[in-house]
Amino acid sequence: MRLIALPLLALVLIGAKADDGVATAERLRDAALADNQAWELVESLTTEVGPRLAGTDKEAQARAWAVAKLKALGFQNVHVEPFDLPVWVRGDERASVVGEHAQPLAISALGRSGATPAAGIEAEIVHFASTEALEAAPAEAVRGKIAFVTHAMRRTQDGSSYGYFGSVRRSAPSIGASKGAVAVLIRSLGTDYHRNPHTGGTSWAEGQAPIPAAALSLPDSDQLERLLKLGKPVRVKLVMTPRFTGPGTSGNVIGEIVGREAPDEVVVIGGHLDSWDLGTGAIDDGAGVAITTAAAKVIMESKQRPRRTIRVVLWGAEEVGLVGGAAYAEAHARDKTIMAAESDFGAGRIWKFGYRVAETAKPLMTTIARVLSPLGITHDTTNSNRGGPDIGALAAIGVPTLAPEQDGSDYFDLHHTPDDTLDKIDPKALDQNVAAYAAMTWLVADSDVALGPVATGAR
Amino acid sequence: MRLIALPLLALVLIGAKADDGVATAERLRDAALADNQAWELVESLTTEVGPRLAGTDKEAQARAWAVAKLKALGFQNVHVEPFDLPVWVRGDERASVVGEHAQPLAISALGRSGATPAAGIEAEIVHFASTEALEAAPAEAVRGKIAFVTHAMRRTQDGSSYGYFGSVRRSAPSIGASKGAVAVLIRSLGTDYHRNPHTGGTSWAEGQAPIPAAALSLPDSDQLERLLKLGKPVRVKLVMTPRFTGPGTSGNVIGEIVGREAPDEVVVIGGHLDSWDLGTGAIDDGAGVAITTAAAKVIMESKQRPRRTIRVVLWGAEEVGLVGGAAYAEAHARDKTIMAAESDFGAGRIWKFGYRVAETAKPLMTTIARVLSPLGITHDTTNSNRGGPDIGALAAIGVPTLAPEQDGSDYFDLHHTPDDTLDKIDPKALDQNVAAYAAMTWLVADSDVALGPVATGAR
Repeated sequence: MRLIALPLLALVLIGAKADDGVATAERLRDAALADNQAWELVESLTTEVGPRLAGTDKEAQARAWAVAKLKALGFQNVHVEPFDLPVWVRGDERASVVGEHAQPLAISALGRSGATPAAGIEAEIVHFASTEALEAAPAEAVRGKIAFVTHAMRRTQDGSSYGYFGSVRRSAPSIGASKGAVAVLIRSLGTDYHRNPHTGGTSWAEGQAPIPAAALSLPDSDQLERLLKLGKPVRVKLVMTPRFTGPGTSGNVIGEIVGREAPDEVVVIGGHLDSWDLGTGAIDDGAGVAITTAAAKVIMESKQRPRRTIRVVLWGAEEVGLVGGAAYAEAHARDKTIMAAESDFGAGRIWKFGYRVAETAKPLMTTIARVLSPLGITHDTTNSNRGGPDIGALAAIGVPTLAPEQDGSDYFDLHHTPDDTLDKIDPKALDQNVAAYAAMTWLVADSDVALGPVATGAR
Repeated sequence: MRLIALPLLALVLIGAKADDGVATAERLRDAALADNQAWELVESLTTEVGPRLAGTDKEAQARAWAVAKLKALGFQNVHVEPFDLPVWVRGDERASVVGEHAQPLAISALGRSGATPAAGIEAEIVHFASTEALEAAPAEAVRGKIAFVTHAMRRTQDGSSYGYFGSVRRSAPSIGASKGAVAVLIRSLGTDYHRNPHTGGTSWAEGQAPIPAAALSLPDSDQLERLLKLGKPVRVKLVMTPRFTGPGTSGNVIGEIVGREAPDEVVVIGGHLDSWDLGTGAIDDGAGVAITTAAAKVIMESKQRPRRTIRVVLWGAEEVGLVGGAAYAEAHARDKTIMAAESDFGAGRIWKFGYRVAETAKPLMTTIARVLSPLGITHDTTNSNRGGPDIGALAAIGVPTLAPEQDGSDYFDLHHTPDDTLDKIDPKALDQNVAAYAAMTWLVADSDVALGPVATGAR
């Protein structure tokens, strides 16, 4: 039996290979490894546009850049889908310890931070080792003071520390405000020891007046803890003048490769165009824009049109609350979206392939995993990965998600800092990403397999 | 012959060991490896004082700190030797590309930079790939423009790239001013890709009016080069408001272990107390202050007083032109200074032992090298090392110099940047430095060997 069965199995596999587009996917994968398109895109975006904060002229410039690039690369149906949003911009920001141990501190305002008066404020620091400790504190311990909140985040390959410890940025300012703090300083939600604090959005409760909220770099956070250990009150002066500039416009930029047989069935891949204002948005998310656009371009160049439509979506206003992702999901709720995948976790190599699909789509996932394995990518079979932030709203309405997971061990050394610049990208790692996206996207787009249904609802 | 000679040679070596204090030096070396004094000193200085720019109140605070520490540790004859100097302080500093590719640039003014008007200046950038290229350019290529000068510095273990490529910081601004440049921007004299530019002193010709001169971080310098490659003129707006605040006071802080037999013969070790204003002066030069003070303290704790006096000198105003080193050499020109050694190249492990002594002192140098070798330290026998910057003036008047050379491979990632903070110091590497200084200093201080004469004259 065994001696007979093996050749038969081999024949079946060979047959499957030809049928499900594996050979084409492998060719696309290998072609992408020798391509240079993604680097050219991310170099151009980060150099010619640079920082591109949501709702500002710079983000508009990024949209114009994207429309021009997608057209020049040969995409079809290139257009912008605009939407409105409130716009917040950074102002001056300075902090210093005052008194006996007077010295400056490196800070960056968090997105949606309130402002101090132009002359600043001065108050005593009160330290909490976690958001939970701040939450548990009586209001009288916080009132009139600057709450200083730290945490124990460490680097992880999958980035899970960001979500787990992230309340320090997302919630601590609002909790501090509710207890009467005059400002909140947090230890940067990051892992590096450079004096470039990590910005990022914070949230206020409905009707709550924003107070000044800023991140300290890790060296500055440690310094403040050492000063507190000297046993005397530590006072800090803060000058911060960010402001809301009123309503503004953002938009998602879209380009397609229209499918040859089922053009109404749409495979969505993309990254987000906006960036924080401190760096040039290279790893967050120029890389994702470049990887997914270049992957589609590799498919376009193969001259073989896929069955389904491949739609590259370059979302706007991700950093300020996933506004573009929500606008896209609302506008395209009735599309036949076969699957969505977003590259928004830097430019590190992909190390694991995950997804969230119907059980019936698992054989296709196994095929994809096999094609990706020569790239050093393992297979996450938990069937639980809802992918990047801008496709969260699609996942919530039942769109299956594919998730090539990038190695994020170093991501939070750079994330939301001035150090997010082109030089941090390894061109070889970028190519590996393009190869994985090209092969994966082709296999889904050229297939007639349904990837859903999956459960609706938010995470 | 051989069988007889070996035991005889061993006896001679054992005899030599006992006579020249090798056994004591080895005990001191090993005691230092288990000590924690240097870390406590550098933590205290960088936390409680922090940045300490020459001539400012913060440097005065550092002197008060040093006097208190040296007294508390049991040093004798603790005192300050004050001197005057012109004081320069940083102001606002902002730069941005204007026009089509508008974006901010990270800059830091160089020490002694001139200022722009409060409203700033705006001019076209003209790029030179080296100081030599700027020097060779006709004035009409520079006049009215911002000269942008880069270089090819790479990391080296011995730090020689700093001197070799250093003209970009030391001379290019003056050369630019002489050709009518309205400002000079240089690629930071550094090796890291963080957006924390490297400051440092620049020099002006006699009677020359300072123009604005600032360093760009390496990512910003690369960005400017990429923008220039797009082929259109690149204009930059600069706002810089540093200023000279007039004459001020600095000083050298001194403490001694008075010698038991030849108290007038002085062995000088030390580091410099002042720092640039951007970081907290941990590797430059809190580490040197801590290493040399802790090494003397280890000797003090051994209860065995050395023949000669050990003098710890903590120089002031090194960063702004070796002012403290010159003042010390002038004030102590008639001392019987047996040798001088300065620790001022970070907190990396010592990897090589060098010196500049009379031929007759070479056996003692070989003994020192042998005692240091278990610390992983090789022996530089070129007899050409004039040691750290503050003892240059002593070397010029014929004082022999000893030079435990630190590994500087990473030094120019941090040097003169905001990132020069305590967390960059490896406590184990710091202890290895203390061990080497303790053993070396003991061997010279307990010896009656003359280390000179050596040739006078500047390098």
